[in-house]
Amino acid sequence: MSSFGKNIKVNIFGESHGVAIGVVIEGLKPGFPLDMEKIQAMLDRRRPGQGRYVTRRNEGDIPEILSGVYEGKTTGMPLCAIIRNNDAQSKDYKNLRIIPRPGHSDYTAHIKYNGFNDIRGGGAFSGRLTAPLVFAGAIAKDLLSRQGIKIVSHLKSIGPVTDGDLNEIKYEKEQEEAILANMLPMIDPNETAAALNALNTARMDLDSLGSTIATVVYNVPAGIGNPGYESLESVISAICFSVPGVKGIDFGKGFKLASLKGSEANDSFYYDGDKVKTRTNNMGGILGGISNGMPIIFNVCMKPTSSISKKQESINLKTQESEELVIKGRHDPCIGIRAVPVMEACAALAILDHISED
Amino acid sequence: MSSFGKNIKVNIFGESHGVAIGVVIEGLKPGFPLDMEKIQAMLDRRRPGQGRYVTRRNEGDIPEILSGVYEGKTTGMPLCAIIRNNDAQSKDYKNLRIIPRPGHSDYTAHIKYNGFNDIRGGGAFSGRLTAPLVFAGAIAKDLLSRQGIKIVSHLKSIGPVTDGDLNEIKYEKEQEEAILANMLPMIDPNETAAALNALNTARMDLDSLGSTIATVVYNVPAGIGNPGYESLESVISAICFSVPGVKGIDFGKGFKLASLKGSEANDSFYYDGDKVKTRTNNMGGILGGISNGMPIIFNVCMKPTSSISKKQESINLKTQESEELVIKGRHDPCIGIRAVPVMEACAALAILDHISED
Amino acid sequence: MSSFGKNIKVNIFGESHGVAIGVVIEGLKPGFPLDMEKIQAMLDRRRPGQGRYVTRRNEGDIPEILSGVYEGKTTGMPLCAIIRNNDAQSKDYKNLRIIPRPGHSDYTAHIKYNGFNDIRGGGAFSGRLTAPLVFAGAIAKDLLSRQGIKIVSHLKSIGPVTDGDLNEIKYEKEQEEAILANMLPMIDPNETAAALNALNTARMDLDSLGSTIATVVYNVPAGIGNPGYESLESVISAICFSVPGVKGIDFGKGFKLASLKGSEANDSFYYDGDKVKTRTNNMGGILGGISNGMPIIFNVCMKPTSSISKKQESINLKTQESEELVIKGRHDPCIGIRAVPVMEACAALAILDHISED
Amino acid sequence: MSSFGKNIKVNIFGESHGVAIGVVIEGLKPGFPLDMEKIQAMLDRRRPGQGRYVTRRNEGDIPEILSGVYEGKTTGMPLCAIIRNNDAQSKDYKNLRIIPRPGHSDYTAHIKYNGFNDIRGGGAFSGRLTAPLVFAGAIAKDLLSRQGIKIVSHLKSIGPVTDGDLNEIKYEKEQEEAILANMLPMIDPNETAAALNALNTARMDLDSLGSTIATVVYNVPAGIGNPGYESLESVISAICFSVPGVKGIDFGKGFKLASLKGSEANDSFYYDGDKVKTRTNNMGGILGGISNGMPIIFNVCMKPTSSISKKQESINLKTQESEELVIKGRHDPCIGIRAVPVMEACAALAILDHISED
Repeated sequence: MSSFGKNIKVNIFGESHGVAIGVVIEGLKPGFPLDMEKIQAMLDRRRPGQGRYVTRRNEGDIPEILSGVYEGKTTGMPLCAIIRNNDAQSKDYKNLRIIPRPGHSDYTAHIKYNGFNDIRGGGAFSGRLTAPLVFAGAIAKDLLSRQGIKIVSHLKSIGPVTDGDLNEIKYEKEQEEAILANMLPMIDPNETAAALNALNTARMDLDSLGSTIATVVYNVPAGIGNPGYESLESVISAICFSVPGVKGIDFGKGFKLASLKGSEANDSFYYDGDKVKTRTNNMGGILGGISNGMPIIFNVCMKPTSSISKKQESINLKTQESEELVIKGRHDPCIGIRAVPVMEACAALAILDHISED
Repeated sequence: MSSFGKNIKVNIFGESHGVAIGVVIEGLKPGFPLDMEKIQAMLDRRRPGQGRYVTRRNEGDIPEILSGVYEGKTTGMPLCAIIRNNDAQSKDYKNLRIIPRPGHSDYTAHIKYNGFNDIRGGGAFSGRLTAPLVFAGAIAKDLLSRQGIKIVSHLKSIGPVTDGDLNEIKYEKEQEEAILANMLPMIDPNETAAALNALNTARMDLDSLGSTIATVVYNVPAGIGNPGYESLESVISAICFSVPGVKGIDFGKGFKLASLKGSEANDSFYYDGDKVKTRTNNMGGILGGISNGMPIIFNVCMKPTSSISKKQESINLKTQESEELVIKGRHDPCIGIRAVPVMEACAALAILDHISED
Repeated sequence: MSSFGKNIKVNIFGESHGVAIGVVIEGLKPGFPLDMEKIQAMLDRRRPGQGRYVTRRNEGDIPEILSGVYEGKTTGMPLCAIIRNNDAQSKDYKNLRIIPRPGHSDYTAHIKYNGFNDIRGGGAFSGRLTAPLVFAGAIAKDLLSRQGIKIVSHLKSIGPVTDGDLNEIKYEKEQEEAILANMLPMIDPNETAAALNALNTARMDLDSLGSTIATVVYNVPAGIGNPGYESLESVISAICFSVPGVKGIDFGKGFKLASLKGSEANDSFYYDGDKVKTRTNNMGGILGGISNGMPIIFNVCMKPTSSISKKQESINLKTQESEELVIKGRHDPCIGIRAVPVMEACAALAILDHISED
Repeated sequence: MSSFGKNIKVNIFGESHGVAIGVVIEGLKPGFPLDMEKIQAMLDRRRPGQGRYVTRRNEGDIPEILSGVYEGKTTGMPLCAIIRNNDAQSKDYKNLRIIPRPGHSDYTAHIKYNGFNDIRGGGAFSGRLTAPLVFAGAIAKDLLSRQGIKIVSHLKSIGPVTDGDLNEIKYEKEQEEAILANMLPMIDPNETAAALNALNTARMDLDSLGSTIATVVYNVPAGIGNPGYESLESVISAICFSVPGVKGIDFGKGFKLASLKGSEANDSFYYDGDKVKTRTNNMGGILGGISNGMPIIFNVCMKPTSSISKKQESINLKTQESEELVIKGRHDPCIGIRAVPVMEACAALAILDHISED
């Protein structure tokens, strides 16, 4: 997954069925007490093996911290944490080296790495690599929360079902609590029920569902970010696209802006006391790559899980002939569900990196 | 705009009404003959002052090459080119320091740079900074074309009008020629006519239109890119979001994937002779962050021009009171039109950077 | 220790008495078989606990590879290896937080990290962090050896004793073997004996010795490197200065060039068959930051071990008064001895990084 | 020369006889008033054409600022400045493409760039590229001086002549003034006279002299820098080795430390009031890569000018035969003289980069 970040550098390593996955985080200020409960809670939201709507692979996902923490506090030195892979069932993947799964990285990884990549469980391309990303993101989220910054993500849509909207103007505690309490990370319990039905149907059809995830970052001060290549949008999007399955991102009203007029799209400024605000938040809190003090809003779309049990058309890279493929192994019917805390992690790391700049 | 790229580094500088804008390009192999006609032709597609659908500011946009070229060929050293600003009318911008334009960077730049930013013409936040980006992209596009790689962008939508689609499977010369020949960079002449009407209406309403731009890169070999943070999607998106006005990007079917099932979304593999292809191209030629040999497809949305002549609600940063704003100056009714070659430049630089890695 | 390298990135983490130290290496080509014996042999040359001339701390220094290797070969993904700290005796370091050792990082680390740094064993400032550096360097050295590139370092001087010179024109197997066979990493057995005497004297005096280490890289092809900030000298020196205790570096005749005339310093070119060579190698194989095909030569000086058992003058950071300090703990009488393979590692990583660029 | 710096990025471009040389500086805080007189004064100290002890090439070296400055103050955006090349006499260099100068980059550049490099005047390898480095350094030095940080360099030795020492404990205004007043940048007028004699002799012998330059940075607060690869020594050395002709660097007592004992080398701590100081400054103000509050001291050695008029042995790359070479063109008899302000620039940029981190 390689490294990202300028002030807070995150370097992720590991393969799905290798010895361990992990992360090195550089740039954390010294003296910050690590809240292992918060970290574990966020990891648990992403963890597999927790219900019938996610893969049955069972991993404790308990991180071991190797460096950078002394007497419970950050030392200012690189913090390395690893998570060992326990429940890998590698026999399931043997034939994927020669019969690549449609929609998956098997073929492209094979070409790029000349057949030397670790194919088991998708290797370094696995969604499992988002566990160390969430570990790092949990620290970032906790650091930001000390400045009053809140980050909330939810499944905005799953297949044909659409959730309600997060408040685009100010944080609502009830929304965050609902997302954590519902069986899926959604605001509306009725839509959650509908989504569970859609998931069941997809699973019985040996198929999978696509989804979108909305994220809002509240209370980011104005003036964070940059014009150009280090714009908030550039940095957030680059991190989000490192997450397997993300195929699109937009900010604020995003693609809907394409059919609006300037007079409809522009967010009018006004003073709320001595604080500058905008009446609407179509721009998602970002103007010219820099935060304007309103909540930062972005949406990503996740493709449907590519590993489905339905019979599919593929090829045999050895015989160079067509081949029918039925994928075994344990897979999520919708990768978006477990990706919700991952998006919070991406947002937290991108914002922390920018804030640390100033 | 700062720098981007790992193997081909691009460092853009300048302000809209400053002395000059320019770019330093590092990592170009020595011995490549610069085709100044191709470069100028691409700059001209982006250049203002060319018709009533774009701003009337008149700039020659003739680059002067200061270094990195000797006897017409690249030396392998940093190539610096500058474009002087000639037709700046700075008086138009005087009051924007205290009355920020809605939807524009005036307010956020003011906060970030403590009021020391060059406000004239949007300073470093101006779309004018895309001229050196196009200069660099024109070189990259020419270099790639020598390997058979073609890059085509068009206005996929403008306000309510939608253009036809670029071929998602293979390059069609006629499509590219139509885009260059029509009065707007669109494939379909009828839709072009409709778009011109919509632009006229917007202009008479003192308003502006949003748009989307589609880009397809043909003949990229399989195996280019990376998993994780240096995925093709990460790098392309980060560059595209450096372009003022871009608020969203998706790859292949993008956000439409969110409502598809895995069996609908996955692109089946087959052999065309000894070449691996996919029947559909929903993934936009990228799997696991790496090219699969099919055309690379992405779409960006551009917000409507934020500088509109209609009266708008804003604030006075000095008096801290509400203020009505009527923007003067010369502005494009739709920033997407001139951004079409800019997207080609972004694609060219991202792909060249990745190809140079291997 | 943070990360370095552009094509081969090395990210070192850990603290001397923490859970583990380790390294993430990115950019290794896939399919390279890891020779664990060679790696261990090079780690063993640096390892403590091997004799009375080095610290008695006893560490196995057996690396555990967590990722990036599959079926014994590199996968092309980040390779993480860790070495657990076993024999740490942390009680020895308790009072150094308030009474900093002269010549050591105790005081500066305390200031920089506000007292939150892991003080035990020097924390991240410890020479122990060179173990993962040697791990990475051993892989680099092995990769380079497949292209015929040989790297040899020796203790050129230790206190008043000076070793013979490595051949500056071509590799001599006997020299390398002598260095590995002698009780200290030196060419000349007589000088080795003299050096052992000097070490004994220093140890009995509760004192320590400075040293210089010479390194020669043979068979680097001409044309590797860059002008400017990524010159071979820049990259090699930056890595070498990351090693605790290095206080100077020079290339070829180095500081002696300051008193030579141009006609004496310039290395004359000639043809040896169709190969370009120079008669002398005063420039250490580098001209304009780029290799000229002659052996690359550099020397570093290492300060004497700062942790000595002799009584020293220091201060108490709490009481702000003078304090006499007698350092306990196990320390090398000359840090240069174990730093010899570390310099080979630095050279290997710098050269591999540059070679991978082309 | 490519780019360096993490917080203050410096990107240098240009070729000796090309259109212009220049620099893009990123990361300067907005609102800093540029003192053009100080910048020009520092450029003038490096400028050629000023006497018989330096090359007779006559360049005004007047920088033109293209961006990043508005109403005389930095905007916070990339600052680009260029210096046009006026007095280039390119005919002097024609035959160097096939008959490379000993000790110069002609041969290595030819190999690296396949003969496409701009050979005129050494192209991008020329010492002329240090003019934009001094421009950037002058700004950095001025910024640092506002925090009380002073940087002084002098010619410590030239051929056989040795200058007095800069005060290693505290800044002396008289020393700096003497260096600026003497005919060479030296402290001692008698040694200056001796040095001028040595230069005259070398020039009459058609030969050149090597030199060393000492630099001291006064009043750097304790706690600046890092362990590992971003140590103060790593960053300073990497920048200094980007300067053509530098072949060695050491810090504090440097190579002399190799023959000292720990008890001699360690700098004892004491309190001067409530300020921590050391009795001696053998470590050059740096412990563990971090400043300790004492002056930062480093020395570089410069090889003698490689372009000498004496007849030399070289080769003909076309005929592959030996060839005698007599170099024409205008060259400095000792490149160290004009490199003195360059070392101040290197120190200023390295320190500013590190200070900006915190």
